Amino acid sequence: MPTSMPDQERPSVLPGDYNPAEYSAEYKLLYLQDLVADKAYEAITEFLEKQSEYEIASLLESFPTQNRLLIWEQVPEGIKGEVLAELEYDTRQPLLENISSQEISLFTQDLDAQDISEILDTVTESVRTSVMATLDEETRVQVNKLDTYDDWEVGSYMDPDIIQIRDDIYLADVQDWLRENEDLLDDESQELLVVDQSQQLLGLLSLVDLIKHDQKTLVSELIDTAITINDRLDIQDAAAIFRSEDIRFAPVTNSYGELVGQLNGEDIMEIIQDDVDSTMKNLAGVSQDEELFAPILTSAKSRSVWLGINLCTALLAAAVIGQFEEVLAEVVALAILMPVVASMGGIAGSQTLTVVIRGMAMGQIGGSNRVWLLNKELWVGAINGIIWAIIMAFIAQLWFHDIEISAVIGFAIAINMTAANVSGISIPLMLKRMNIDPALSASVILTTVTDIVGFMSFLGLASVLIL
Amino acid sequence: MPTSMPDQERPSVLPGDYNPAEYSAEYKLLYLQDLVADKAYEAITEFLEKQSEYEIASLLESFPTQNRLLIWEQVPEGIKGEVLAELEYDTRQPLLENISSQEISLFTQDLDAQDISEILDTVTESVRTSVMATLDEETRVQVNKLDTYDDWEVGSYMDPDIIQIRDDIYLADVQDWLRENEDLLDDESQELLVVDQSQQLLGLLSLVDLIKHDQKTLVSELIDTAITINDRLDIQDAAAIFRSEDIRFAPVTNSYGELVGQLNGEDIMEIIQDDVDSTMKNLAGVSQDEELFAPILTSAKSRSVWLGINLCTALLAAAVIGQFEEVLAEVVALAILMPVVASMGGIAGSQTLTVVIRGMAMGQIGGSNRVWLLNKELWVGAINGIIWAIIMAFIAQLWFHDIEISAVIGFAIAINMTAANVSGISIPLMLKRMNIDPALSASVILTTVTDIVGFMSFLGLASVLIL
Repeated sequence: MPTSMPDQERPSVLPGDYNPAEYSAEYKLLYLQDLVADKAYEAITEFLEKQSEYEIASLLESFPTQNRLLIWEQVPEGIKGEVLAELEYDTRQPLLENISSQEISLFTQDLDAQDISEILDTVTESVRTSVMATLDEETRVQVNKLDTYDDWEVGSYMDPDIIQIRDDIYLADVQDWLRENEDLLDDESQELLVVDQSQQLLGLLSLVDLIKHDQKTLVSELIDTAITINDRLDIQDAAAIFRSEDIRFAPVTNSYGELVGQLNGEDIMEIIQDDVDSTMKNLAGVSQDEELFAPILTSAKSRSVWLGINLCTALLAAAVIGQFEEVLAEVVALAILMPVVASMGGIAGSQTLTVVIRGMAMGQIGGSNRVWLLNKELWVGAINGIIWAIIMAFIAQLWFHDIEISAVIGFAIAINMTAANVSGISIPLMLKRMNIDPALSASVILTTVTDIVGFMSFLGLASVLIL
Repeated sequence: MPTSMPDQERPSVLPGDYNPAEYSAEYKLLYLQDLVADKAYEAITEFLEKQSEYEIASLLESFPTQNRLLIWEQVPEGIKGEVLAELEYDTRQPLLENISSQEISLFTQDLDAQDISEILDTVTESVRTSVMATLDEETRVQVNKLDTYDDWEVGSYMDPDIIQIRDDIYLADVQDWLRENEDLLDDESQELLVVDQSQQLLGLLSLVDLIKHDQKTLVSELIDTAITINDRLDIQDAAAIFRSEDIRFAPVTNSYGELVGQLNGEDIMEIIQDDVDSTMKNLAGVSQDEELFAPILTSAKSRSVWLGINLCTALLAAAVIGQFEEVLAEVVALAILMPVVASMGGIAGSQTLTVVIRGMAMGQIGGSNRVWLLNKELWVGAINGIIWAIIMAFIAQLWFHDIEISAVIGFAIAINMTAANVSGISIPLMLKRMNIDPALSASVILTTVTDIVGFMSFLGLASVLIL
C-alpha cells in the first residue's frame, strides 16, 4: 500500500502539509489498486467519496474491464449518474448492461438534460423508454431536443438550459428575480442572455456588470454583443470560432434564429483536446476510440486495418526491390545498406508531416504560403539530405572500401530526403484538397513514397554505376 | 481575392446571413494574403481592426518572417501590446528587434503585469530597464514578482492581480464595495478570494452566490473551499490537479502560505494543449518550438539531431544485416522480403506506443495494471502477428515458390510483431522509471528494436533453415 493517503476531505484551505503528488491521478490509481486487490470494499467507498466525478470516471477507465463493475458498485449512489455521464462511451456501455432500468432512472433523477442524453445514448430502446417515462416534463423535452442532433453537431454539445432576461428592466430587478429563483443559476454561470419583447436575442449581460454597475441602470445599457452559433454547425467549426474569436461562451440558435441553448468553453476545450488526441492516434494508425484497457480482441481488431494497409505498401516496396535482383545478387553490400536510405527518408518526411498537420489544424496553411512552405521544405530536405549524404558516404567508404557504393548511397540519401520533405507537405495538401483527413492517411502514403523512392534511387543508381 | 469578406464589425447579434466559414482562420488568412500581395495597407488596417488580438497573432504567425513586419505595422496601435503578448516567443522576438523601447513602453502602458512580463522576457536588458521605468509602481512590483519564477513554475503563469474580501462582512457590503471600485473586476471574473482578519485565505465566494443569496448574509456562510496551488509547483502538475479536481480556478500561495496570485482555467487549457502538441512533435523528432514558418536553416538545424540519432540506429540495423552476408548472397529473395518484416514490426510497435504514451499522460498507467497491459499487448501482438504471418507466408509462397522462404518470413513476422507490441509498452515504462520523457525517445528506441529483431529473426532463421 502506498505509504500514506490523506484521510481528510479534499484539501480545503491552505493545508500546511499540502502535497500535490498525493493528489496526482497516478498516486490515486495505485492506492485504489491496492484496495481492489485487498477487496477492501468499505475503504473503496470511503476513498471514492473524496474524489470528483471526473476522477472516479478516469479511475474506472484505468482498470481492466473485469474490475470495473466491482469498483462501480462502491461508487456513492448520489453521484453514480454524474460518473456515468463522465465515462467514455466504450467504458459506460458494458457497465450499463449490468444495471437495471429502475436503477438508471434513480441515477439520472437529478442530472441535467445533457448528461441524461449522453447516458441514454448508450442503452437499449426499451431501457430508454422506461427511463424517459420517469423524467419530469421539462427535462424530457430537453433530452428529446438534444437527441434530434447528430453527434458531430453543435446541438448535441449545447446546454439547453438557458436563462433569459429582458433588456428593459433595471439591474436591481434582475438581482431580485435571481434571488427569488435561486435554483436557476449554478455556480458556473457567468452570463445571462438578454432578449427583447419579441424574444429576439440582443446579447449578453455578464454577472460582473450586473454587480458592479449602479442598480438603477437598465439592462439594455450593459449588453455585450455575442457571437451566435448555429445548432447544426459542425462542432469542430464551432471550436475554431471559439478559438479565433477568443470567446468562452456562445448562445446557440436554430435555423429560424430561435435561441435553443448555449455552448460553453469547457465543452469546446474537450473537443480541442479530443481533436489533438485523435490526430495522434490517426498518425499512428490506431482507431480513434481504441481505449487503453480495451479487451485483447477489440484492440487486435482495431489495429488490423492499418497493419493490412501497411503490408500492401511494404509489398509494393518489396516489388520495387525485386526489380533489382541482379545487382543485389552481385553486390551484397547493397542489401546491407538499403534500409538506411529508406529509414532516413522516412524520418525526414514524418518530421515535415507532423509540423504541417499541426499547422493545418490551426488553419495556418493556405493560399500563397503553401508555395512558400513547399519551397522551404524542399530546401530543408536538400540541405539536410546533402549533409547526411556526405556523412553516410564517408561511413560506407570506411566500411566497404568501395567508392562506387559510397557514391550510390550518398546520392540516394540526398534524393530520398529531399523527396521525403517535399512529400511531407504535398501529400497532406493533396489529401486536403480531396477532402480526406490528412492525419488519417498521410503517414502511410508518405512511408510508401519514401520506401519506394529510397529503394529505387539506391538500387537504380547501383545498377547503372556498378553493374 | 476571396469572393466576399464581411465588411461589418465582428458579428454582433444573430446576423441573418451569418456564415461561420467566413470567420474561419483559413478564410481570413487567404483574405489577408491577397491584401498583402496587393500592398493594400489601408485595407489591411481596416481588416485587422475587426479581428481579435488572438486572431491577429495567429495570422502573423501564418506568414513567412519577411512579411510579418509589414503586417505588424498595420496593426491598430491600441492593441499592439496585446497582440505582442499573444505571439509565440519565436515570432515576437524578431519583431521586437525592430521596435524602439519608447514604442514598446507605449504598447505596454495598459497591459496587465502578466502580458508585460511576457513581452519583457523577449527584449534586451537595456530595453527592459527603460520600459520598466515607465510603468506605475504597482505594475512594476507585479512584473518583478512574476520574473522571480522559472518559466515552468506556476508563478510565471499566475495572475498576480487578486481581489480579496473579508469573511466577516455582509453580501450587501461586498456589492457596494465592488460598485465603488468597479475597475477591480474585469468581465471574466467569477470568484472573489475570501480572507480572515489575519490575511489567511479561507476560500472563495462565487459571483453567483454573491447575487442570488439574501444580501444580509455574511460572506463567511457562503465560502466555497478552494484547492490552493503552490507558486513553485511545476505547471504540468498544476494542470493535472486542475484536470483531476475538475476546477477552473485556483488561488496561488507561496511557501509562507501567503496569497500571491490566482491561476485560471484558460491558462491551464493552453498548457494542456501545448503538452499534447509537444508530445506529437517529440514522437516525430521535431524540436518542440519549431515553428511552421521558421527560416530554412533554423528548421534544418532543429531536425538534425533526430536525423543523426536515426542514422546511428539505422547503421546498427545495417550491421545486423551485415552479419548475414553469406545467406543474403545465396538467396536474393531474402533481400527483397527483408523490409516487410521490419516494417510490420515498426507499425505494430508504434500503435502500442501511441496508446501507451497517451495513457501515461493521463496518469492511467501504474501499479498492477502495467502487468495487465504488458500481458494484453503480448497477446494482441501474438494474435495479429500470427494472422499476418500466415498471410505473408502465403504471399511469399505465391511469389517465390519456396516453402523454406515462406516459413522463414512467417515466423519472423510473428516474432517481430509480438516483440514490437511488448516493446511498445515496456520501452516507455522503462524510460519513465529512468525519469526520461517517453515521448521524446521511445519511438527511436522502438524502431531500433523492431529493425534489429526483424532482421535478426528473419535472416537468422534463414541461415539455419536454408543454408
